[in-house]
Amino acid sequence: MDESSRVGIIGSGSWATAIAKMLMNNVLEMNWYFRNPKHIKKFRKHGHNPNYLTSVDFITDKIHFYSDINQIVEESDVIILAVPSAFLKNALSELSVPLKDKVVISAVKGLIPDENMIIGTFLNTFYDVPLENIGVISGPCHAEEVALERLSYLTIACQDVKKARSFASFLQCGYIKTSVSDDIYGTEFSAVLKNIMAIASGICHGMGYGDNFQAVLMSNGIQEIKRFVDTVHPITRDIKSSAYLGDLLVTGYSQFSRNRTFGTMIGKGYSVKYAQMEMLMVAEGYYAVKSIKEINEKYKVNMPITDAVYNIIYEKISPSIEIRLLTENLR
Amino acid sequence: MDESSRVGIIGSGSWATAIAKMLMNNVLEMNWYFRNPKHIKKFRKHGHNPNYLTSVDFITDKIHFYSDINQIVEESDVIILAVPSAFLKNALSELSVPLKDKVVISAVKGLIPDENMIIGTFLNTFYDVPLENIGVISGPCHAEEVALERLSYLTIACQDVKKARSFASFLQCGYIKTSVSDDIYGTEFSAVLKNIMAIASGICHGMGYGDNFQAVLMSNGIQEIKRFVDTVHPITRDIKSSAYLGDLLVTGYSQFSRNRTFGTMIGKGYSVKYAQMEMLMVAEGYYAVKSIKEINEKYKVNMPITDAVYNIIYEKISPSIEIRLLTENLR
Repeated sequence: MDESSRVGIIGSGSWATAIAKMLMNNVLEMNWYFRNPKHIKKFRKHGHNPNYLTSVDFITDKIHFYSDINQIVEESDVIILAVPSAFLKNALSELSVPLKDKVVISAVKGLIPDENMIIGTFLNTFYDVPLENIGVISGPCHAEEVALERLSYLTIACQDVKKARSFASFLQCGYIKTSVSDDIYGTEFSAVLKNIMAIASGICHGMGYGDNFQAVLMSNGIQEIKRFVDTVHPITRDIKSSAYLGDLLVTGYSQFSRNRTFGTMIGKGYSVKYAQMEMLMVAEGYYAVKSIKEINEKYKVNMPITDAVYNIIYEKISPSIEIRLLTENLR
Repeated sequence: MDESSRVGIIGSGSWATAIAKMLMNNVLEMNWYFRNPKHIKKFRKHGHNPNYLTSVDFITDKIHFYSDINQIVEESDVIILAVPSAFLKNALSELSVPLKDKVVISAVKGLIPDENMIIGTFLNTFYDVPLENIGVISGPCHAEEVALERLSYLTIACQDVKKARSFASFLQCGYIKTSVSDDIYGTEFSAVLKNIMAIASGICHGMGYGDNFQAVLMSNGIQEIKRFVDTVHPITRDIKSSAYLGDLLVTGYSQFSRNRTFGTMIGKGYSVKYAQMEMLMVAEGYYAVKSIKEINEKYKVNMPITDAVYNIIYEKISPSIEIRLLTENLR
């Protein structure tokens, strides 16, 4: 990977758009895949993504748009995956061009539902991408603040730290500072777990718990994340780093996080189904909590917050019972 | 200390009032010191503190009010100190009754300005209170949420953990859960440092930095707190516990914290003097940052956030210069 590498983004949501905005500071041209050709047409006409971060203007002459997944992969050296995890398998289903010689960067922050795998493991297992060619982009970073060019810090993880550093140079700019890490497992799992914590935070908020309790929940949340990632992938890591703790905080304390909003509706008494319809958006944590629960059947890590969210969403146990129980397990 | 111990509170602010409310669930009667006898008169007449948490009603027959510091100390076995740290020395200046046979609990969350000592060290040095008779009450806990009976968690620290447990039993009730710890130094220092972090958080908020940056600041903040307390008092502690990380979060993310508000005004361009006049309240962090800076001359811990706040408040360096520099040191 170097300055001449052709970079392609797969995904058209707000996070994909934020990444594209950062990239455009550092590359002369980029490739971008939209599933729907109509959206490409609108993008070209208006000079911005028609559906997300519409305030961000792009010089469309510098963007090669694709709605053929094979073509964008064929013509890119570095592929950034930025689609919701629940749709990734489907998005890649028509892919016949091999991925194994590409550098593939996950900006997904989710697990592949049926496989219960982080994106890295999924790409390695099903697409033969070598682990040292797999990267992860991690927050704390709301896309909306990137649109506003508010100072944000990203961590790029790759087992080949040199590649992480090269890719970081594609993103950094006046309002984006980057760090690198070799911890793709910890980074992805903790990005996934923080969405579960954000749902818990929303549920408690919806039920009327206050800021004092929220601080206790987040403190216990980062401890739960540490217990899990240290068990699943035991290496030395400082869980208080921005990529882990920061990512939890920006989501758990956000008024805009879809996971927290989803939780708040459930805490206020809406059914899971109604909350989902109302939001018209995917709350990653909804899928994540089922996957993590299943993965943890093997590891048996003590995860009281994850258990409570799972029981409320999938076992339909009343939030008032589950959260009451949870409060006994926190300290 | 047991059920028959006579408990006295010194202090009449919101935190003192919140502690009194908790106590009243567990003791038959309590002693309470107000410097100003007029406030006692009003309290008796209206059944609540005339100035703070006025929504909390007390059965005044169960309270022995004092405006003589010697008398309350004489007639109490357990003394809770709940006055701003800047006033504590003065509040105790007329004390002639010895404190050394009492259990003294600090709810101060500050350092003695001229001495640069935590309350425990101050009581031990100047009042001969044995360390094992000194306790600390630590949050995360806004007094206002105690008034609303919102679930909150307190940590009681004492080197004699049995005493911590006894005192905890005076506070716990339906909406207050307690833990105990033997770390009076780490608990007090981190309660002090979190106010400095909250000022930093306010300054950045006032300057227009967003939630992404706030999460990075808090992640770096808890790392800075850990570096400092582990150096000053190196014992095994989990800085991610509610008493440390939780206390930082509830203050750093609060819209109501006076320290954060003080910082926000400075970040918006008000002078330190104007911000203080406007607030009519003591921002503990204002004093704390000077003390910590002086203490750290000996330890030389890397404290970029503390340094930035100190330089802005005491060296009158422009927030835009200091925070720009700080952003280079965070990750």
